[in-house]
Amino acid sequence: MRFVSFEFSGQRGLAVERAGQLRGLTAGNCDHTVDLGQLIAAGPEELLRVGRQLGDGPEFDPDAVIFLPPLVRPPKIICVGLNYADHTKESPYEQPDYPTLFARFTTTLVGHNQPIMRPLASTSLDFEGEMVVVIGRGGRHIPKSRAHDHVVGYSIFNEGSVREYQFKSPQWTVGKNFDSTGGFGPALVTADEVPAGGKGLRLETRLNGATVQSASTDDMLFDVATLIETISEAITLEPGDLIVSGTPAGIGWARNPRLLMKDGDRCEVSIEGLGKLVNPVRDEVRTEDIAGKAA
Amino acid sequence: MRFVSFEFSGQRGLAVERAGQLRGLTAGNCDHTVDLGQLIAAGPEELLRVGRQLGDGPEFDPDAVIFLPPLVRPPKIICVGLNYADHTKESPYEQPDYPTLFARFTTTLVGHNQPIMRPLASTSLDFEGEMVVVIGRGGRHIPKSRAHDHVVGYSIFNEGSVREYQFKSPQWTVGKNFDSTGGFGPALVTADEVPAGGKGLRLETRLNGATVQSASTDDMLFDVATLIETISEAITLEPGDLIVSGTPAGIGWARNPRLLMKDGDRCEVSIEGLGKLVNPVRDEVRTEDIAGKAA
Repeated sequence: MRFVSFEFSGQRGLAVERAGQLRGLTAGNCDHTVDLGQLIAAGPEELLRVGRQLGDGPEFDPDAVIFLPPLVRPPKIICVGLNYADHTKESPYEQPDYPTLFARFTTTLVGHNQPIMRPLASTSLDFEGEMVVVIGRGGRHIPKSRAHDHVVGYSIFNEGSVREYQFKSPQWTVGKNFDSTGGFGPALVTADEVPAGGKGLRLETRLNGATVQSASTDDMLFDVATLIETISEAITLEPGDLIVSGTPAGIGWARNPRLLMKDGDRCEVSIEGLGKLVNPVRDEVRTEDIAGKAA
Repeated sequence: MRFVSFEFSGQRGLAVERAGQLRGLTAGNCDHTVDLGQLIAAGPEELLRVGRQLGDGPEFDPDAVIFLPPLVRPPKIICVGLNYADHTKESPYEQPDYPTLFARFTTTLVGHNQPIMRPLASTSLDFEGEMVVVIGRGGRHIPKSRAHDHVVGYSIFNEGSVREYQFKSPQWTVGKNFDSTGGFGPALVTADEVPAGGKGLRLETRLNGATVQSASTDDMLFDVATLIETISEAITLEPGDLIVSGTPAGIGWARNPRLLMKDGDRCEVSIEGLGKLVNPVRDEVRTEDIAGKAA
């Protein structure tokens, strides 16, 4: 199943998508939560039951709804850097033999079709297409052999990065956490719909129609099962946690000349079997400017 | 006021502390939430109203309650590295002229008197005493001149760090995020009880009674107002967000010989006016060992 979180007429809703068609329910019109994070925490039977119910619900025009991130407030967003050898080569780093982890906050998330914001602070906004792993059953010390049992599904991420700020200190955090720079969606695709571990899927990023990244998820240095084993050696994974599994070569910052995102651009990340995440790019507007318009 | 989150007889509760005495209410025995994060989000009037009500509540024996982190699920835990010049000098880093930010997840938090866990994975568990800033009113692009208006209070953190893992890759994340390594508490002390910006407070860390860190919060390179202005240039701050403002010199990893924490140790962090956070240190127990005992 493919779960889509959305807003319609000011109401939160949840839908399942089939062949481009959305069927679902809005909050208040159903006997269950429309928060996908809460549904995942309720367990696979409840998720399946609700998914079937949504599939019998009314149709929503995909052009008339606001797509939300599939999970609006995941407990953790654990990102993996330097997880494709060709990307490490274009970076200033040596390849570490342990996953390079960093965090994003939920304030960075934007849904499909929603704008990724280029901040006032810097013009160095770059794209990074990535596959997202969504944790279903939580746990600690999860062995690689059972890791896939803990994955409820997969999705797509555009890990928008403000490069200047990423390198202002030894830690990348601020460059990875500007508001509304993390495209996420359009759907959470349950694990049964793709090969185990999301293996062998073609990932492509396109900026204004031109392909800028193209790789297979097989090229990941630390595959999904290894990431889950390694992270959970240290950290309890919880239902709804995201592992954003890294980007391949082709980022704009490493190009000569540099290729950065600006107002009016359109960035797409597609992953075989998972769909296509589209985000327009918009400049952040000065608060005083908005105030000025309102006056 | 000094707010303490606790558990008593399996029930969540919230108390105010005065001269070591706790008075408060448990969930179900009051007309308000006992989740301090939700109260902060409800605004300063509600926090004050509830605080007064708690002060008229029954007394709880501090030795009979389980102290929880004052906020159990803060939306963000933003930590600041290299924020005391003497600590940067003992580290392998040059002093950056921009705050070095990293994140902790809520799975790392433990309350006052609760054990900080030394993981199975490594013996390199180190202490870091720090002052915590708790955001009351959220916002973006908060100027330094108004930054203190966004602080609801202060608290204490022991930013337990697993050094081996901190340096396994260019990003510190995993070493800073082992389960139950982040001591936080005992209380959230509202901003009116300390000097503006938490300035000029003596911070001391003691391991088994010996003073290992001693500094003034005045020694912070980026003070509280600067941190809020700088972070909020990029990131929307939300009610209940934590800024863990950095540790001074004296960490165990930089000593010769190294001084690391182990099972049976007791680590205290005290900050003038904010109280004393005490955590015993315990070794993580292998899950099979627990299963063995239960059988």
